[in-house]
Amino acid sequence: MPRDARQTRRRILDAAYREFRRKGFVRVNVDEIAAASRVTKRTLYSHFRSKDELLAAALEAQIELAAAAKQALTSQTSGSTPEQIVESLFAALHRWSGKTRWSGSGFTRVAMELADLPGHPARALARRHKGMMVSSLAEKFANVGIKSALERAREIWMLAEGAIVMVLIQGDASYATTAAEAAKRLVLRDVVKQPRLRRTPPTQSSTPR
Amino acid sequence: MPRDARQTRRRILDAAYREFRRKGFVRVNVDEIAAASRVTKRTLYSHFRSKDELLAAALEAQIELAAAAKQALTSQTSGSTPEQIVESLFAALHRWSGKTRWSGSGFTRVAMELADLPGHPARALARRHKGMMVSSLAEKFANVGIKSALERAREIWMLAEGAIVMVLIQGDASYATTAAEAAKRLVLRDVVKQPRLRRTPPTQSSTPR
Repeated sequence: MPRDARQTRRRILDAAYREFRRKGFVRVNVDEIAAASRVTKRTLYSHFRSKDELLAAALEAQIELAAAAKQALTSQTSGSTPEQIVESLFAALHRWSGKTRWSGSGFTRVAMELADLPGHPARALARRHKGMMVSSLAEKFANVGIKSALERAREIWMLAEGAIVMVLIQGDASYATTAAEAAKRLVLRDVVKQPRLRRTPPTQSSTPR
Repeated sequence: MPRDARQTRRRILDAAYREFRRKGFVRVNVDEIAAASRVTKRTLYSHFRSKDELLAAALEAQIELAAAAKQALTSQTSGSTPEQIVESLFAALHRWSGKTRWSGSGFTRVAMELADLPGHPARALARRHKGMMVSSLAEKFANVGIKSALERAREIWMLAEGAIVMVLIQGDASYATTAAEAAKRLVLRDVVKQPRLRRTPPTQSSTPR
């Protein structure tokens, strides 16, 4: 693809993602996305055949961004404790939810909007994205000595998703703080103890009689 | 309102709720709701002025049903343990999520669909509904001796919301089981100990010198 066409495609994808995030999949129409990306509808349709295809491509691009961010995060926190991992996850959630016009997780929103269409390509992408986030968290947990790392990651991830739902619905950011405290209690009891030098157990030979 | 009109109104509300639940707020149109409730569009509009008003009324009716169900549940489990309360909550979620065409929480879905419209009457109803569920759970927890009953209720409720999100997106019911186990760990350490007879403390008079 020539460089110009690639840049146009990128601009449409970014605008599409912003519009979908703002108004949801159903209420956005292709005219609005064309206007927001400063292309004609004809140009838009030369890149994407339908709104469905555009949504899937916009989410796909977003997954790649999320994967890059995830990798950065993993290397930054590779030396930290379970408590720090949980704290930085919920601190990020807290900051994110404080943004103006914040509307929760885009993937969750799309999955709920298309709840009656499990075969929609956007549903598959949401599944892949959430699966990736959970396994990434599990990997981090395993690296700092958490035993049942995948189970703990699933639990903590559900607390994070639940916090997003409740902060959005109640308009009350303290749900993120409550979730962080619960998450810490759930992980802190699951750290593999450092192997310690065992004291020589009492044996018959050392303690006669 | 005459009896016939009340019955028609009820039928429209039930059909509207079913259709909104199935396809989401945005994709359902008033013609479909009129058809599903076997009334003309003219009759429908004699009861409700707009789709917005109809959605608000349908959710309102649903909240009343939920409140009645909640009361029944409260009286049934008034004598149970924290563990039993948590188990029955997640068992209900597990059964519910196994229904065909299950699409998660209707109130959450509506709040996400209308994430950019915090002033929409349906958003206020979602807020009221979730608030009611959390305080009802807190009340049950307090009744069985959980100390920080409201904090625990908020935590457990977020696990339940997170489980709904993950079961829906991943199509994997085991998230409900994982959430139930985490919820039990969170509540079990927070039960007020039964007051025990204190042993007489050693005092100067009873133990001279």
